Amino acid sequence: MTSSEQAIAEGILFTDQYQLTMAQLYYRMNIHEKPVQFDHFFRDYPDYGTHKAGYCINAGLEWLLDWMERVRFGDAEIALLKEQRGSSGKRLFDDAFLAWLQAQSFECLTLRAVPEGRVVHPDTPLTVVEGPLVMAQLLETSLLAHLNYQTLIATKAARLRHSGRGQLLMEFGMRRGHERGANAGARAALIGGADYSSNVGVSHVLGVAPKGTHAHSMVQVFMALGMDELDAFRAYAETYPDECTLLVDTVDTLRSGLPNAITIFEELRAKGHQPVGIRLDSGDLAYLALQAAKMLNDAGFPDVSIVLSSNLDELVIWQIITQITLDAPSLGLDPNSVINRLVYGVGTRLITSQGDASLGGVYKLVAVCDEGDWRPAIKLSDSPEKIPTPGNKQLLRVYDERGHATADVLALQDEHPVTSAPLTLHHPADSRKTRTLHPQNMQELELLHRVVWEQGRREEAPSLEAMRAWREQDLARLDSGVKRLVNPHVYHVSLSSRLYELKQELIRSVHDKAVNGKTPA
Amino acid sequence: MTSSEQAIAEGILFTDQYQLTMAQLYYRMNIHEKPVQFDHFFRDYPDYGTHKAGYCINAGLEWLLDWMERVRFGDAEIALLKEQRGSSGKRLFDDAFLAWLQAQSFECLTLRAVPEGRVVHPDTPLTVVEGPLVMAQLLETSLLAHLNYQTLIATKAARLRHSGRGQLLMEFGMRRGHERGANAGARAALIGGADYSSNVGVSHVLGVAPKGTHAHSMVQVFMALGMDELDAFRAYAETYPDECTLLVDTVDTLRSGLPNAITIFEELRAKGHQPVGIRLDSGDLAYLALQAAKMLNDAGFPDVSIVLSSNLDELVIWQIITQITLDAPSLGLDPNSVINRLVYGVGTRLITSQGDASLGGVYKLVAVCDEGDWRPAIKLSDSPEKIPTPGNKQLLRVYDERGHATADVLALQDEHPVTSAPLTLHHPADSRKTRTLHPQNMQELELLHRVVWEQGRREEAPSLEAMRAWREQDLARLDSGVKRLVNPHVYHVSLSSRLYELKQELIRSVHDKAVNGKTPA
Repeated sequence: MTSSEQAIAEGILFTDQYQLTMAQLYYRMNIHEKPVQFDHFFRDYPDYGTHKAGYCINAGLEWLLDWMERVRFGDAEIALLKEQRGSSGKRLFDDAFLAWLQAQSFECLTLRAVPEGRVVHPDTPLTVVEGPLVMAQLLETSLLAHLNYQTLIATKAARLRHSGRGQLLMEFGMRRGHERGANAGARAALIGGADYSSNVGVSHVLGVAPKGTHAHSMVQVFMALGMDELDAFRAYAETYPDECTLLVDTVDTLRSGLPNAITIFEELRAKGHQPVGIRLDSGDLAYLALQAAKMLNDAGFPDVSIVLSSNLDELVIWQIITQITLDAPSLGLDPNSVINRLVYGVGTRLITSQGDASLGGVYKLVAVCDEGDWRPAIKLSDSPEKIPTPGNKQLLRVYDERGHATADVLALQDEHPVTSAPLTLHHPADSRKTRTLHPQNMQELELLHRVVWEQGRREEAPSLEAMRAWREQDLARLDSGVKRLVNPHVYHVSLSSRLYELKQELIRSVHDKAVNGKTPA
Repeated sequence: MTSSEQAIAEGILFTDQYQLTMAQLYYRMNIHEKPVQFDHFFRDYPDYGTHKAGYCINAGLEWLLDWMERVRFGDAEIALLKEQRGSSGKRLFDDAFLAWLQAQSFECLTLRAVPEGRVVHPDTPLTVVEGPLVMAQLLETSLLAHLNYQTLIATKAARLRHSGRGQLLMEFGMRRGHERGANAGARAALIGGADYSSNVGVSHVLGVAPKGTHAHSMVQVFMALGMDELDAFRAYAETYPDECTLLVDTVDTLRSGLPNAITIFEELRAKGHQPVGIRLDSGDLAYLALQAAKMLNDAGFPDVSIVLSSNLDELVIWQIITQITLDAPSLGLDPNSVINRLVYGVGTRLITSQGDASLGGVYKLVAVCDEGDWRPAIKLSDSPEKIPTPGNKQLLRVYDERGHATADVLALQDEHPVTSAPLTLHHPADSRKTRTLHPQNMQELELLHRVVWEQGRREEAPSLEAMRAWREQDLARLDSGVKRLVNPHVYHVSLSSRLYELKQELIRSVHDKAVNGKTPA
């Protein structure tokens, strides 16, 4: 793509065709400016096959709002739509509609949303969009593309950090990302759990130092020029004496890389510098980490980090830590001293959320305003659990007597649940499942939504530090069982009694009318 | 990201940090402009878990070259690098290096590559980059991010098309793509097997009409405003009388959606228009497709398409076709007449390559030129099959007496294999595996690389039609067994005798020198 083509492809036409054809239909019906509300939510946690998430980390909002602020139906976009023809050869979009469309922007919308970095759960609106029908509908595709992916990656990063027991985590996946999507992935990883990323551009944009070591090719270049691995390491140490992390597996990890690295570290130390680490990028990482720890300890470098990379994910890290725990004593090593010097560089399996590369986030119409009267909208479906909860809703998080999050609750906007009265929670689809929380078991009810965009005016975006602090605070208030890597405890997402009744009534009424021709009561 | 931040994140700093730190090291060693060669190749076909590809479709090159042409170390980029500090607080990159860097571009490189749309296989260089060390190394990350993803998606699209027996295929996955990566995914899908995409911007950029139907929300809006599904369908038919495809599962597919669609189709026909299709987006798609076919036939619409969407992939499509084949007769339907009216809309599982969301493409140093003398470079590794084949190579495809592709062969640049003499093929790692092709079994030897970028001058990019034609031609010349969706026959990728010997010699020599301290013979 040339720059001007990219401007088209990433501008307001970064959308699905049917959004535009529906827009023209609404325009012709003169319902294009009816106020409506869409809810954005995901239906289930990422399911990685052999394991599944028990929570997600919300991310992507700021870049969505940046996009909304920037894009317009400019002359170039309108010209392309004007030229588009249907199968009969006639133009698909007429002049009156396009003239109206060109005057539109996303400033007419209001967005309420859960802040980035916060723990979130399925079937709860993470973003609520309110505004005129056409522009609210037109936002769908881009909103989902921005929020689905970053939430997916922030979640994976949080799981990796949890698995690595909070050790330093670096995002290395740019080359395996989905082209320019790698930038959004790096940002999401930094929100969700990574300390650093190798991605230079995005790191600078976010004010985080990009990090890296060196590649095998560096050692190869020296060898091809008649020098050897030791020469390559020495050149690296001379260039970066205070950031010296050496990749030791280009030739032979234990017989060449590690002995050479130790030689260089001794030279560095003699010059008053502190060597930083070695990196292992192939082979049996647990075995090699133990051998490396022993060799580095014996050489007097117990503080040098051991960076692991090569197809890591949360289960591989868990397995490495388990193997080290079991095997360290036989080498005379304290397992924790090894585990606490590990650093994880995670590439492919973070940037693509290995095992489940998409979050099933959706954007559903939940209410339409007709002459001042808000009417809940519903979509019936074959499976009851797929029916979105209609109407204007608020999202509350209930903290129990220990201060732990115990349920996320959807209630109608005009409800005012309090901790001083019992609160009955309903399963969104299963009428038999209810639960009552009593005042002594409720420490706090927290409203999760904030207004982040009101007719083009934006709430100041939180800093990366603030998002990370939210993540850590939310994770600290989540039960261990919910955070388990495998087979997590299911966190409760519930409806208030009034909302549950409204939903059931609406399902009955729509179904009766549509299928049996009855008029709703 | 603001526009200027995006320019940084998608410009020449769309790279990994270690590329820049290595660059400075090479600069200081004064080897930064040594000519080198890197090979880009993937190690294995996508493995989707229960099934695996037997070929890939090459894609992504044109957008990579567009990127190479556009990006520069401008003042903004240099300013960021100047400010970057190491852990000691000192600047990481010095002025002399940055001044040199700012004068660089990718124009100094030459790229040979397999054209987009062509069938490709593992361990064969798809792109060969030659040029001064620093700029060739700096290209790595972006090259891989551009080529890995598009090749992955073009491959999935080809499999979907094969599974659907060539029926119309539409790419619908934008909302589940990896943010802006969705654009590259749509392009790759259009190269690899999709006829159309719902992605408006990219479709216009590529000169393909974007396609779509309508959303459930359209029916919901009408219902919330006191109208019904029939009113919504009628409004759609009036707005788009010649493109009328109706989504029939918002309320109840068989009891509401289909009867209403048939009513509208009758109205359309009475006005002289030909209805196009119905879309099924939930439920048992094979069962519903059969029921829909029967109802549409009975109503006199045997030519109306049945568009299927909702979590399709190549196995789901195969299963749907199988179920229709088995069940159609009991409904008095000819299975083929049903199968041949199906259209597939594939979203998530195409745009994310469900089951394997990354292609393991790598970029390996294979030769370094020292004072006019090209020296092969090698990286040893724990597993022999992971050792890249060194040196300057050519890539040939051998067609057998039936005109079918029977092997891809790597040979040295100065070899000139011919069909008139026997050709011995070596397995890249296993010395016991050889195969000799005799003249009577070789119809053609085809050179697969073209020079696509020579010091900034580009070969004219092939049209989308040309890439699609290559794909179809290459697939027609591939054995059925290789194209199987599950358990495909393994296509041969081989080395010439001379290249095989060179590789073995180099492995011995490097290993001896590095591990045993012996000087190579």
